[in-house]
Amino acid sequence: MILAGIILAEAAAIYDNKNAIQTQSYGPESRGGASKAEVIISDEEIDYPEVIAADVLVALSQEACDKYASNLKKDGILIVDLDKVGRVPTSNAIKVPITRTAVEITGKSITANSVALGVLVGATGVVSRQAIEQAVAERAPLGTQAMNQAALEAGFALAEKCTSTK
Amino acid sequence: MILAGIILAEAAAIYDNKNAIQTQSYGPESRGGASKAEVIISDEEIDYPEVIAADVLVALSQEACDKYASNLKKDGILIVDLDKVGRVPTSNAIKVPITRTAVEITGKSITANSVALGVLVGATGVVSRQAIEQAVAERAPLGTQAMNQAALEAGFALAEKCTSTK
Repeated sequence: MILAGIILAEAAAIYDNKNAIQTQSYGPESRGGASKAEVIISDEEIDYPEVIAADVLVALSQEACDKYASNLKKDGILIVDLDKVGRVPTSNAIKVPITRTAVEITGKSITANSVALGVLVGATGVVSRQAIEQAVAERAPLGTQAMNQAALEAGFALAEKCTSTK
Repeated sequence: MILAGIILAEAAAIYDNKNAIQTQSYGPESRGGASKAEVIISDEEIDYPEVIAADVLVALSQEACDKYASNLKKDGILIVDLDKVGRVPTSNAIKVPITRTAVEITGKSITANSVALGVLVGATGVVSRQAIEQAVAERAPLGTQAMNQAALEAGFALAEKCTSTK
């Protein structure tokens, strides 16, 4: 998720002309436990570099959901991978098959990050679609651009499907 | 420098078993102006995610040096690329040909980040050499591992040469 955090921050700052700060925290738990990437996006200058209460949380594992859901605002948006996260602490979480879709579309579970970005941007509009497309194209490892664009678009589609059935 | 910040944080957390936080700040200036990557490394838990006063600053452009040198502690270590930074606000800066060495060793100026990491770790010991070697190997884009290892080792050599002539 580190790269996803960077891509989202760059979409906001470079392509949508906003301010952004992204932070990665590594503890001894980084050897396989839940890791956390934070991104703050604002039209104004950003004073404090840490997320106090999150507007959106994307959790791709039960451990991450359990650990970080309390950081979400009361009316914040929780997005989870429905195959990975069984218990959610809210009735209005967006549950979508993120990793499964990545594997179906690209054959690679590593593109789950791009699917997650697509769901996040599709569901929240926190950055423009064009900005996230450009940021993914710029940051995707050489030779994986098309794969990651496909994963991103699949994420947009998941978000549309999900929000239209509400 | 974004990737360099991530690599340094991962060297500390994953391979040297410390805590680390790395932060990237993007403003409208991120379109070519000075960008900033901060890394905090500690044996203890890290409370505050922002660098208040830096122990070490690496500046690869005059603009970055001018903008961030005031964040350095009084006895902090300033490392600059001597071909890019002409004016330094202290008499004891470590001035080394970072980008020039990258081009000489690998033919690619983009490996300046790995040279800079080598100088930083060689001069300060903030993480172990083994840790930074492993982190670079893990994070270098596919097909560029050998090139980035060579750049890193060249950075170690620059640091040794520089500190031994003091």
